[in-house]
Amino acid sequence: VKLGDMGERKAIESIRRILRGTSGDVAERYDDCAALDWGEHYILLTTDMISKVTHIPDAAAPWQVGWHVAAVNLSDIAAMGGEPLGLVFSLGLPRNYDEDMLLALVEGMNVCARTFGTSIVGGDTKEVKDLTIAGCAVGRVPKSEIMFRKGARPGDVIAVTGELGRAGAAYHGLQNNPADENAVKNLLEVVPRIKEGMILSKTNAVTSCMDISDGLSSSIHQLSQLNGKGYEIEFDRVPIAEEASETSEKQNIDLEELALYFGGDYELLFTVRDGEWDKITDALGDTGTPVTIVGRVLEEKKNILIKDGVIKELEYRGFEHFR
Amino acid sequence: VKLGDMGERKAIESIRRILRGTSGDVAERYDDCAALDWGEHYILLTTDMISKVTHIPDAAAPWQVGWHVAAVNLSDIAAMGGEPLGLVFSLGLPRNYDEDMLLALVEGMNVCARTFGTSIVGGDTKEVKDLTIAGCAVGRVPKSEIMFRKGARPGDVIAVTGELGRAGAAYHGLQNNPADENAVKNLLEVVPRIKEGMILSKTNAVTSCMDISDGLSSSIHQLSQLNGKGYEIEFDRVPIAEEASETSEKQNIDLEELALYFGGDYELLFTVRDGEWDKITDALGDTGTPVTIVGRVLEEKKNILIKDGVIKELEYRGFEHFR
Repeated sequence: VKLGDMGERKAIESIRRILRGTSGDVAERYDDCAALDWGEHYILLTTDMISKVTHIPDAAAPWQVGWHVAAVNLSDIAAMGGEPLGLVFSLGLPRNYDEDMLLALVEGMNVCARTFGTSIVGGDTKEVKDLTIAGCAVGRVPKSEIMFRKGARPGDVIAVTGELGRAGAAYHGLQNNPADENAVKNLLEVVPRIKEGMILSKTNAVTSCMDISDGLSSSIHQLSQLNGKGYEIEFDRVPIAEEASETSEKQNIDLEELALYFGGDYELLFTVRDGEWDKITDALGDTGTPVTIVGRVLEEKKNILIKDGVIKELEYRGFEHFR
Repeated sequence: VKLGDMGERKAIESIRRILRGTSGDVAERYDDCAALDWGEHYILLTTDMISKVTHIPDAAAPWQVGWHVAAVNLSDIAAMGGEPLGLVFSLGLPRNYDEDMLLALVEGMNVCARTFGTSIVGGDTKEVKDLTIAGCAVGRVPKSEIMFRKGARPGDVIAVTGELGRAGAAYHGLQNNPADENAVKNLLEVVPRIKEGMILSKTNAVTSCMDISDGLSSSIHQLSQLNGKGYEIEFDRVPIAEEASETSEKQNIDLEELALYFGGDYELLFTVRDGEWDKITDALGDTGTPVTIVGRVLEEKKNILIKDGVIKELEYRGFEHFR
């Protein structure tokens, strides 16, 4: 079977089966990072790759590409409540890549790392045909504070940081105008929620957390499978980015598509114990980052969307590689 | 300036300059891994990428490719005396890659990780045109035992683990016969010196260490620049792999080329305080791994090769990307 026929998620399931055969400790493998035991802490370890082929718009500046690959790696640390300790990058570069572009790329990574309180501590450069960059972030979190994907219970409220639909709007904006600078910026200069993740993890009110890299719906379905619970989302409560509303109107694209079924927003999706929501708003108040309840966790394993008073199935689709 | 014109080492120097501008703690960046401060330990972090374009012979089995990328990452942990804690991989895979090949690839990584006392704890899969894999290894070492590249002093003896020239012989073997299974095996199924690195670091007799990924001569020159010292190598003492002697004879290739100027052997190159060599042989005795003195460190920063009674310059060349 070719990967193009089976898709990314099935391929990953196959990989899990192989690794599970030799190891008992695979629980962490469903999280954004691996969590390695170290005394009272976990050491968090994650890797994320981007490539010219699938991730980088033609109009992207190297600085933005550098920022992006650092940000998506940090986002995984954020999802578990971690403090980043360092980043390394493997840079796969074409032979005809320019020194100035390389330095701008590294500067973008560097500024992103510094912005979120960490630094680039090492790396590797190799020759490839198409620009391909793999980042790896290491972080730490006290064991008592770590947030896993698993842990949601019926009655918990479901919440997100920031606003959704910005990346989807940017993607469609670029389809319309490949030189759209704002769209490139919204797609690549994403903000990893490091500060928010650390604050959320300290409230002890969060029962589960992940970052929404593949879209809200896809993330909800992954959480549902892992937790064995249902998730009810109220569309009217989903915080929609202004860019998404504009693009929806201008290009006549369903807002639901942009906000639920499109990857790239990198906000945190988390569940909070019923009655403890005030802890969240109090703790995040000073950050200025919006945080919004979008639904609640159900006993029955069935994911639904309430929109315009109608209850319907929340479809399991979103961005997937190889398809 | 294009990377193809400047070469890998100059590109890396440019990157260092950018990162140095914002950080004081760049000393570690000259080592095989980053060393992050954690109480009485350092956390070691490293990344290494391989790609179809430059690293993988056509006759390579996916299992061997998997082993190789795990091994080269572990080799960096070994060079600093570290105990590996976990590996993550970013797999850049073509859409038409086969599921069975993917699983064999992961199995190769997995077996290598297990062989050296660690495991694969996470990863990422992405779609690319040409197979490109970045690994990232995390490890730990007590601060009192860590081995850096810097630390050699005049009078120290220079030593290597294992034998040299096997990878060079394999490369030339494949030029002759691209289906040569032994050559593919010798090139890809390299042995990271994890056990030996940990033992060496505990002797407290080692003053500096690195792995020889780009060839002995290239490694010596890198150490010389960093330590500000000279290195004298006696060719007659360099332990030569049997495959190198055979290939040298059969294909009429200078043995010096294979043993000194060719990358891919991944042995440890280290310096030992004068008079403390017995500590090394005693400590490594049980492993069965050969360890050989090949020269000594000089006060004057000048790298020389003694061969057939003649003293000549040790040339600064070896494998380099983009060139």
